[in-house]
Order: sequence, then C-alpha cells, then structure tokens
Amino acid sequence: MSIDRQKLRWNGWGWVDAPDTLGERAPAVWEWMGKTLGLHPLPFTPAKPLSEITLPPIRVVAPDLLASLSGLLAPERVKTDDFERAFHARGKSYHDLLHLRAGNLDTAPDAVAYPVSTEECLAVVQFAAAENIALIPFGGGSSVVGGVTGLAAPGQRGVISLDMTLMDQVLEIDEEALTARVQAGVYGPQLENALQARGFTLGHYPQSFEFSTLGGWIAPRGAGHQSNKYGKAEHWLVGATLATPKGLWQTESFPGSAAGPQMRDIVAGSEGILGVIIEATVKIHPLPEVKDYRGYLFMDFASGVAAAREMMQASVQTAMIRLSDENETRFYTALTLGGQEPDPSVRFCAMLIGLEGSQSEVAHALSESRAIVEKHAGIHMGESLGENWYKGRFETPYLRDPMMDRGLGVDTLETATRWSNLLRLHDITTEALSCALDAQAAFPKARGIVMSHLSHAYPDGASLYFTFAFPRAPERAVEQWLAIKRAVSDAIVANGGTISHHHGIGIDHLPWIQAEKGDHGISALKALKRELDPASIFNPGKLIP
Amino acid sequence: MSIDRQKLRWNGWGWVDAPDTLGERAPAVWEWMGKTLGLHPLPFTPAKPLSEITLPPIRVVAPDLLASLSGLLAPERVKTDDFERAFHARGKSYHDLLHLRAGNLDTAPDAVAYPVSTEECLAVVQFAAAENIALIPFGGGSSVVGGVTGLAAPGQRGVISLDMTLMDQVLEIDEEALTARVQAGVYGPQLENALQARGFTLGHYPQSFEFSTLGGWIAPRGAGHQSNKYGKAEHWLVGATLATPKGLWQTESFPGSAAGPQMRDIVAGSEGILGVIIEATVKIHPLPEVKDYRGYLFMDFASGVAAAREMMQASVQTAMIRLSDENETRFYTALTLGGQEPDPSVRFCAMLIGLEGSQSEVAHALSESRAIVEKHAGIHMGESLGENWYKGRFETPYLRDPMMDRGLGVDTLETATRWSNLLRLHDITTEALSCALDAQAAFPKARGIVMSHLSHAYPDGASLYFTFAFPRAPERAVEQWLAIKRAVSDAIVANGGTISHHHGIGIDHLPWIQAEKGDHGISALKALKRELDPASIFNPGKLIP
Repeated sequence: MSIDRQKLRWNGWGWVDAPDTLGERAPAVWEWMGKTLGLHPLPFTPAKPLSEITLPPIRVVAPDLLASLSGLLAPERVKTDDFERAFHARGKSYHDLLHLRAGNLDTAPDAVAYPVSTEECLAVVQFAAAENIALIPFGGGSSVVGGVTGLAAPGQRGVISLDMTLMDQVLEIDEEALTARVQAGVYGPQLENALQARGFTLGHYPQSFEFSTLGGWIAPRGAGHQSNKYGKAEHWLVGATLATPKGLWQTESFPGSAAGPQMRDIVAGSEGILGVIIEATVKIHPLPEVKDYRGYLFMDFASGVAAAREMMQASVQTAMIRLSDENETRFYTALTLGGQEPDPSVRFCAMLIGLEGSQSEVAHALSESRAIVEKHAGIHMGESLGENWYKGRFETPYLRDPMMDRGLGVDTLETATRWSNLLRLHDITTEALSCALDAQAAFPKARGIVMSHLSHAYPDGASLYFTFAFPRAPERAVEQWLAIKRAVSDAIVANGGTISHHHGIGIDHLPWIQAEKGDHGISALKALKRELDPASIFNPGKLIP
Repeated sequence: MSIDRQKLRWNGWGWVDAPDTLGERAPAVWEWMGKTLGLHPLPFTPAKPLSEITLPPIRVVAPDLLASLSGLLAPERVKTDDFERAFHARGKSYHDLLHLRAGNLDTAPDAVAYPVSTEECLAVVQFAAAENIALIPFGGGSSVVGGVTGLAAPGQRGVISLDMTLMDQVLEIDEEALTARVQAGVYGPQLENALQARGFTLGHYPQSFEFSTLGGWIAPRGAGHQSNKYGKAEHWLVGATLATPKGLWQTESFPGSAAGPQMRDIVAGSEGILGVIIEATVKIHPLPEVKDYRGYLFMDFASGVAAAREMMQASVQTAMIRLSDENETRFYTALTLGGQEPDPSVRFCAMLIGLEGSQSEVAHALSESRAIVEKHAGIHMGESLGENWYKGRFETPYLRDPMMDRGLGVDTLETATRWSNLLRLHDITTEALSCALDAQAAFPKARGIVMSHLSHAYPDGASLYFTFAFPRAPERAVEQWLAIKRAVSDAIVANGGTISHHHGIGIDHLPWIQAEKGDHGISALKALKRELDPASIFNPGKLIP
C-alpha cells in the first residue's frame, strides 16, 4: 500500500496534517460564510476523537476469527484494532461523517483482512461464505453513497472488510494495444506514477484521486474530471477478474465482441455485490504532450450549455468541459476573493475547457472550441482561470471538515440527463434543494446555498453536479440531511434525471433505484446476485433493495 | 413494412430480379474463378424451387392456432402459407443456404405473426408462454449465424416466428439530444429515409443494410461499415423496450449513469433470448456535410495495420478504415479486371479510409490520416477506389447465389483482438482456414482461397473479416462446411480472438461461447434468461448452450 493510513483522517477528508486550503483568506471567508448562511458567529462543533469512542464489541470472537483467518492470511494482515475498524466503518459522505464525527461506529467491521494475492482473496471469500460472514470490498473507502458501510444482512455472524490495497501492482502494460493489467487495490497516485514512468496515463482523475483505488473507481462506474477524453470507468474498463463465492470470474476483454452481452459491462456498477474486483485491464493513453486549461465566461447558464452541447455534438476533442451556474460562479469568486462577493448585478457563468493530447490535436480542438464559445457569446478569460483550477482541483473536499467543525453542513449530489432536459432539470433540482433547505432550516434565520456545474458531457446529454451548504441542525443532523436528500432525489428521478451519474447507489440512493431500473431491471440484477453470490455475503444492503 | 417480401429471394440474397453484379465481366470472372478453385468448367447446381418442396406439417394445428391468434391479431397478420414459412425457416448464412437450396425446410415455423403494436406483441408473448410455443423474434432475417432458425426446445408444441417488420415507425426525434425513438422492425433504408428527411442519420450501414432491421442490428451487437464514427449497436443504443414473458421491460436511457450496471448493455447481444425488442432509442447525427472515401496502397499488411492502429490511437476521426490483406487485394483486383490476375510478384494491401462529417472535421482528419499513411509508406491512390467501393458496397453478397449455382461454396467469418495480437491472429486464422479447406477438399484438385480485411477498429484493437471460397463437396456440403467452421473457430478462440465481432452467436457459434464467457459468464447469462423468460419460449437453442 502506497499510503500510510495512520496519516489519514478516519473521520474526515485526506491527510491529517494537510494545510488549510483557505490559507490567509480563512478568517474573511468564515466571516462571509457565516453571514451568508445566517449563522454568525460560527460555532465550534468539533468531532469526537477516536480515543473517546467505545467501539461495538467484535461479534465474531476475535481470537477465533484471527485463528481461522490466520490459516488463510498472515496474522498481521488481519486487523481488529480500533483505528482499523473505525477507518473501515463507513465511507466519506456528509452522511457518513455525521455518524463518524458523533462517535457512532456501530457499522465498524469485526475485522479487516488485507489479502496479497488472488489465492488469499479466494480463501477469504470461501471462509466468509462458509461462516456466513458479510464481506465488504474496500479500496480507498471514499464512497459518498454508503458503498462501504460495514453492514451485515440479518442472520449473518459478522462483517469483514476486505481491504484490497495491498494488491496494488501494475502487472502488465501492452504498449501496442494501449492497455494495462493492474491489481485493483492500487491508489490513484501510485497507479499514475507507475504508468507515467512508462510514458502512459489512465487519465482517470476523480476528485478523490489521491485517496481512491482502481477497483473503487470501477465498482460504482466512477468518472474522472477529464472523462470527456478518457471516459468513465465503464468506458475504459476492458476486462476484469473478480473473486466470487463461486470462484474466480474473469470477464471477456476484447476490443469489440458480438458474443452476447459483455460481462465486463455488468462488473462496472456492480458495487461489490457480485464479488470483489481483484484485477482489471484498462485502456491507457500516451502521456499528453500538451495540457491546455482555460476559462471562459458566459452571460447565462443556457448559453454555456448550448456551447457545451455543440462541442460534444461536433466531436470537438475536449478532455473536460466544466460549466458553473451563476450561483457557483459567484460562490467561487467570493471564495477566491476571500469573502468579497461580486456586485449582485453582475451574473456570469464560468466555463473551464481542458484539452489534452498531441500538439496538433490540442491546437485543433482549441480553435474549434473557441469558435463555438464565441458563437454563444462566451468571453475568453485566458489560461490563469484554468490553471488555477487545475492546481487546486483536489483541494475542495478539504473544505468540508472545517465547515463541519463550524456548525455547517455541506453535501454534493449529481445526476445526468439528455440535453433537451438539462436546463429544466437544473432549475427543478436547484429549486427542490432550495425548498428542502428552507423546510429543514436549523433555525428561523438559517439560510442554505445551492450551486451546480455541468461537468461530464456526451453527445446526448451531460451530468449536473450540485453542492449545497447550510447550518446544521445540531440535534437532528441526520434527519435534516435525510429529508433534504429525499426531497431532491425525488425531484431528480421524477424529472428525467438518473439518481447518480458517477457516485453510485450504495445505501443512500437505494430508495430510488427501483424507479430507475424498473421491476424487470431489478429482478435481473437480483438474478445475477443469486447466481454469483448465492449465500449473499458480498456487500449486503447495497445497490439492490 | 417498406419491402415487398415476395420480391425477395427466400433462399438467397436480396431482390429476385437484382441485376448480375458482375455485368459484362461475368463470363471472364467465372472462367477465372473456376480455374482458380480447380473446378473447371463450373457445373450448374441450381437451388430447388419452393414449388417442388414439401414443407413439414404444421404442428400446432393451423385452424386452432389461427383462431387463438386471431383473437390477438387480425387474421391476415397470422401467416401459414409456404412462402412465409420458408422465408422464416432460417437466416442467410452459407450454412442456411445449403439447407434451403436443398429444399430442407424442417425448421420452418408453424406460423408467422406480424404484430402492429406493443399490446399485440405482449399478447402473442403471453399466448406463446401459456401454450408452450417457441417464439423466434424476426426482423429482416439476415442472420448469418443461425440466429433466426425456427427451432423449438424439446417439449415445446411448435414455433411461431414473431416478425416485427410492421412495427417500423420513427416515433420521436430529439433534435437537441440527437436521439431518435424508433420501432425495432424498421428496415435500414426506411429508417434512414425518415431520419434523413429531418436532416439526421443513424449512420449504421452493415453489409445487410437494405434487408435488415433496427432490432436485428441491436440483438447481435451488429456493426455498420462506418462504425469508427457511428459506433456498433451497443455504442449507439441509448435505451430499449422489450416484450418479455414477464411483461414490458424498458431499460434506462441516460447519457451516463452510475445507477448499477446498465440493463441496456444486456439487451445488446441478447439475440432474442430474453424477449423481443420492440422499440429502441438510438443516437443520431446531423447528416455529414462531406463524405470522403479514398484508397491507399501499403507494401504489406503489417504496415497497413500499423497505420490503422496509429490513426485509432491518435484519435483521428475516421468513419471507416478498411485494410485488405494481400490475398483480398489480389482477389478484388482480379474481380474488377474481369479475371485478370495482377502480376504475382506485385503484392500490395489496399486500404480504404472513409471520412464523414463537417467540412472542417473531414479536412482535418484527411490531413492527419494522410500524414500517418505516408509515415508507414502508404501510397495515396485517389478517390476513385473509395468511391467505387462506396457505390458497390451492398453488392458483394449478391455474388454468393451465382457461386452456389456453380458448385462453389463461399462463407465469411470475423473476429476481433487487441492490436498486439492482430497480425498473429490474422496469420493463424488464414493458415487454419487454408488447412481446413485442403483437408475438406471436394476432390483432389479442388483448391480454396482465403482472404481477409481489417475493418472496425478501436484504440485497443480491431476486427478481422475473413472470406473463403472453395468447390463444394456435393454429397456432404454441410459436413464439409461444419468441419471447416470447427477448425477455424477452434483456432480463433485458442489464439485470443473473440468468436464474433459483429455476427453474433446464434446456433453456429454456440460451441465456442463457453470458452469465451467462462463458466460464470454463462451461468450469469442463464440466470438472466431464467429470470426474464422462465418458460424458455424465446429463441430456444441460441446464444447459450
């Protein structure tokens, strides 16, 4: 494993000793944010330290479990200490953090197993199946939908978190086919280092890049910032190998095949309910000669959406198109200016366009994209906006912990829909969030803010990513969040949006999966589950109701 | 239905009164072909006319069946006459034609039902499930792998061919999202006419375009000539609606979703075993401003493959790259020259590159592709080669019937593999075919010819399409073909190729599907089948062993 987990926050984002991303602007930003959200001065609401938390007892008696697993794994790779159990209790959603920060560790697994080989994976799977113990595939643990919560199904004897991060090697690079065969437990930076040392990249840089793994990207059909060029996980996944209770399952890995439905397509999105991904073959690319990120301003969201659509439909080779709505543009402007809000009469939408590739590819795409932007009255703002975003692109999640330390709540959610429904869904979702934030206000003067951006785009549509912040209701923080989540999710699903474009289903989106898949879709998924995991030990309670 | 079926050959390709594609060259070509294949003079081996064939009795007593179905469909849309039964007995493979031309119609369905609505489809499905009758979804019937053969499972009372071609309307065009919702029974030309009248195209032009349907393209993951731009069926399929024994099944249709595996991906490749596709939402494109098809010559196949690979990996926006190997280049040269073979010392490989799109897209791709071709010592041959191919691109299948009338056999097969294995697989498959043709020679002096081309290409690999011709063994034509098919399929699967890139599995590729999918892949498919078609009425004997 390329990361020392002890240096990570078990109940928050990233490195324990990460510098304050706000830097010198911090006091002014907090002052502004408190005023904006009607919570002024901001209170101090720290998380409970692990040392003050009593973990639930280990259900599968520890020495027994250790003895059993020790025959399968070296004893030092079966962990039952508090930090390991706490680290594996949940993912990294706002919902998770509400529980973790309050010291609620009732979903802590009984043990964490770290296999180092396919054989060890299979042995642990067989053991869990024989002993009726739930297995939770775990990579970086950065799920924001409850995808790694340590749940057991009724009747199961306990929970083992199956941590894959010791299986982190690039096994093979096919320089002709531009594919790499990689163990699924590799963290983002280690994978990119290994590929880039050979002149290649996977190009998958989700917000969680530093703290998430290859398998964790595939399981929920994740997307990196540059998915316009490199694709979502389901696009760059060529083939996979899973350990299932039925044995090793290797999917096809052809560039194109008409030999029935491709089982690989079922793995992407399977969220650990069919087995654990231990290896994947993925598409790689030569390292781009040039990266060009620059900013544009549009007079309104609709103009920016029209430009994004035209670029996608004219096959302009962008790596990323990211269009903030007016609220988000104002928010980030204020954040950058240390809490100074722009003149309220000035309302713009910022678009970042990222281009990656050879000199000639990028030059061509630059001229094509600028022509389309100008056609829609977009104004070129130069490269600094793009470069600043690029430099700070993994920092935003660090804002959440200090917000939560100050009595605030903040969450994100995302959807995708066809272009013809995009503006409508944007407005409806924004409205639904605003109403829900009002309805769930912690106190009469509490105010919520809602903002969003279009990111991952396709010829037929695009995703929308929403961020919302609000004063937390201290005594009913989980209920407050659940009510907001329910209201906005209902609105999304009722209005032609998918319940998730790249976060996945996990637990948090379960109430909406049936509506999206339909009865036959769900029963088909259940049939696959019954077939591959008949004892139902894998990741119970996730993905299917 | 936009085609008068009575004007089609029930036991051969295309229109009954199609002109001889060889035109004035015919005598010279036949002379040359007979000599090349060691069968000279070519004999006359006509097909048996339908009037001389006795069809098997209708198992489900016709009046009963008609009465039952008449309650569901208008009586004139339930056909039991000889022509209809013969037309629906089999697809259009060489293997099928051996049976059909010999007058073997033992797979003729008992009846052909032509529903005109979703409700009628569901009613027929319910009827078949209740009565234990096999249902064979039928579009154009151009399967070349036995995908529409009228088989019943043991114990089933009979077979109904469910002909979808009366459901042929474009229901909705979303000009913003560039998608169209279309009934699945529409033939290629009618679909393109409807879309092009509105300024759009699906761009899916398989060899069978004129005589195949939308549903028939989706079911086996078909590919059109221009799949580099427009994608295979699984790429342009946005969503589908199927009639299944469990009721109507509508898949998701989002531009991108992380809500579990997408059921749409299971429909593409399902080959009618889970239900019948009645509607599909597909990606469409503005009609290209420019089509540019031109030819290049390479000194050898490897140089052409290297150029194709570089174009795909550098994201050059081609619609088609088609690279004939030396054998195929010689064969088509001789065919074009009316049987004059080029000097044997001259060995080239012809590549056709098709570009489609806006003026600027095509201009850019032309300059990029020419630079790459030149880098690999390819020689530009101008546009006439490309334009001639484009004009005659649907004519080649018409050559088969006159060959079969002259004692010859001819078949095609295809595969795909990663670039790093492509030349090796090309050579091994060519060799396996040559050896099998020798081993199965109809008589001592009989000779076979084998040729191939690379067509559909991807960043990680490409397809290979083989054509082989040989003197037929008159007394054991089916056995001869089976032995050749077995030998070459064994070689493909043992050497890293998929058993099919775009023809599908049907019956003919069944012996190799288990090796390709693995035990778990097959049991997963069987689980889906059990769930959606528990009575197992849909297309028995296809896709899964």
